[in-house]
Amino acid sequence: MMKQTLKVIKIGGKLIENEASLNSFLEDFVQLEGPKILVHGGGNKATEVTGKLGFQTKMVDGRRITDKDSMEVITMVYGGLLNKSIVAQLQARKQNAIGLCGADGKVLISKRREVKEIDYGFVGDIEKVNSDFINSILSLDMVPVFSAISCTEEGVLLNTNGDSVASEIAVEMSKSYEVKLYYCSEKKGVLTDIEDEDSVIPELNSDNYKELVASKVITDGMLPKLHNCFEAINKGVSAVILGDAGLLKKNSIHTKIVK
Amino acid sequence: MMKQTLKVIKIGGKLIENEASLNSFLEDFVQLEGPKILVHGGGNKATEVTGKLGFQTKMVDGRRITDKDSMEVITMVYGGLLNKSIVAQLQARKQNAIGLCGADGKVLISKRREVKEIDYGFVGDIEKVNSDFINSILSLDMVPVFSAISCTEEGVLLNTNGDSVASEIAVEMSKSYEVKLYYCSEKKGVLTDIEDEDSVIPELNSDNYKELVASKVITDGMLPKLHNCFEAINKGVSAVILGDAGLLKKNSIHTKIVK
Repeated sequence: MMKQTLKVIKIGGKLIENEASLNSFLEDFVQLEGPKILVHGGGNKATEVTGKLGFQTKMVDGRRITDKDSMEVITMVYGGLLNKSIVAQLQARKQNAIGLCGADGKVLISKRREVKEIDYGFVGDIEKVNSDFINSILSLDMVPVFSAISCTEEGVLLNTNGDSVASEIAVEMSKSYEVKLYYCSEKKGVLTDIEDEDSVIPELNSDNYKELVASKVITDGMLPKLHNCFEAINKGVSAVILGDAGLLKKNSIHTKIVK
Repeated sequence: MMKQTLKVIKIGGKLIENEASLNSFLEDFVQLEGPKILVHGGGNKATEVTGKLGFQTKMVDGRRITDKDSMEVITMVYGGLLNKSIVAQLQARKQNAIGLCGADGKVLISKRREVKEIDYGFVGDIEKVNSDFINSILSLDMVPVFSAISCTEEGVLLNTNGDSVASEIAVEMSKSYEVKLYYCSEKKGVLTDIEDEDSVIPELNSDNYKELVASKVITDGMLPKLHNCFEAINKGVSAVILGDAGLLKKNSIHTKIVK
């Protein structure tokens, strides 16, 4: 039997911060047909609020530490302000939606990251996605809107990487859908020339990916991101699409990653 | 046919602020059998955050005005921090739950309060409770946990009185359930002597309520609250129970309001 297509779309913090970009993205998003899921990052709003509240952003070896105060701010800003504002903006466009963090319906269960050299604090990695609950929401014709907050079995809220939230949901939902995973960020896709915004590679599969890595066309920051994309593909996601805020428009320029 | 009993419980801000009281309340709450709904207020946390963020709490004629900045803080603190923390604490106690504001599933649709002498800003009064959506959540054996934020048809989030959120939900759900509405605050119930915490009136109906008002035993601040309670009763709620944080305990002292 042909599986129905489900779209899982992650939007980054910078897109959310820019009101015009967010509006334009949401206009495209509500036009998409079929079941869909939105995952959002946080951007600089949490840092701004942390600063205004007089908390210090704690860093160890250049890495951000999520202490108790930071986790409170993340719960306020990601789980409250940004999440509920996006839901309200979808309702304004006649798209029924519901805002969720990992604690709601135990939908994203995680484990606190083990302390090795660095204690990252309230940071977690997802262990289980509750697809039954997500399916219940989708069957009500609602869009689940996820903030990147997960929850341990013991009920502790944890800061979680937004890209990972999207890919873990996509992988789990692949068991019952043909899932397409979209990452919207500032770049139009994977570039052959980092200096040239228009040098977007239209399609990548694992073979030509290996060639491009070997010939050092793809390097540095793009490597872990693409590694994660191929991992999602290998775990059942049918395609990963990388692009900018215009990614959902017809004839958009983007990079499509397939097996 | 006998209707199933549904319990709608409102907890005030002061209860939430006190960690020990909140823990004790949640222990009792998870023991309650049958379908149940939790509505929470905000307490001083929003005022505290407003101050720390450098915003002024705006007052006109002694009334608080919810301007745009205040509404952002309310969305952060009530819709994010408090709501998601309560959900996480319920999950920790093996009680499945989901945190909601009025925008989620268009569950609490409101109208912005009309500007007469005073413009209260982003403040709304509920016009419609989406009981179908609440029933969908209850049928998943989840507790809906509401922050006191509603949403207009146009997708504008509005600050809303928590007691009214609870009573509007209770009235709407009375169409399919026998609803008991609980208000947990600092007082054990309606007192015959405001100076004596133990002078709790165990039961009030509209007849003896009128007598107590006529004889000036019940005065001042208690009048609007009781007016709202009897309005809920007259619109189909089977009983309203007023008490403190220990209200859900067996043999608690409280005031029960019936028709």
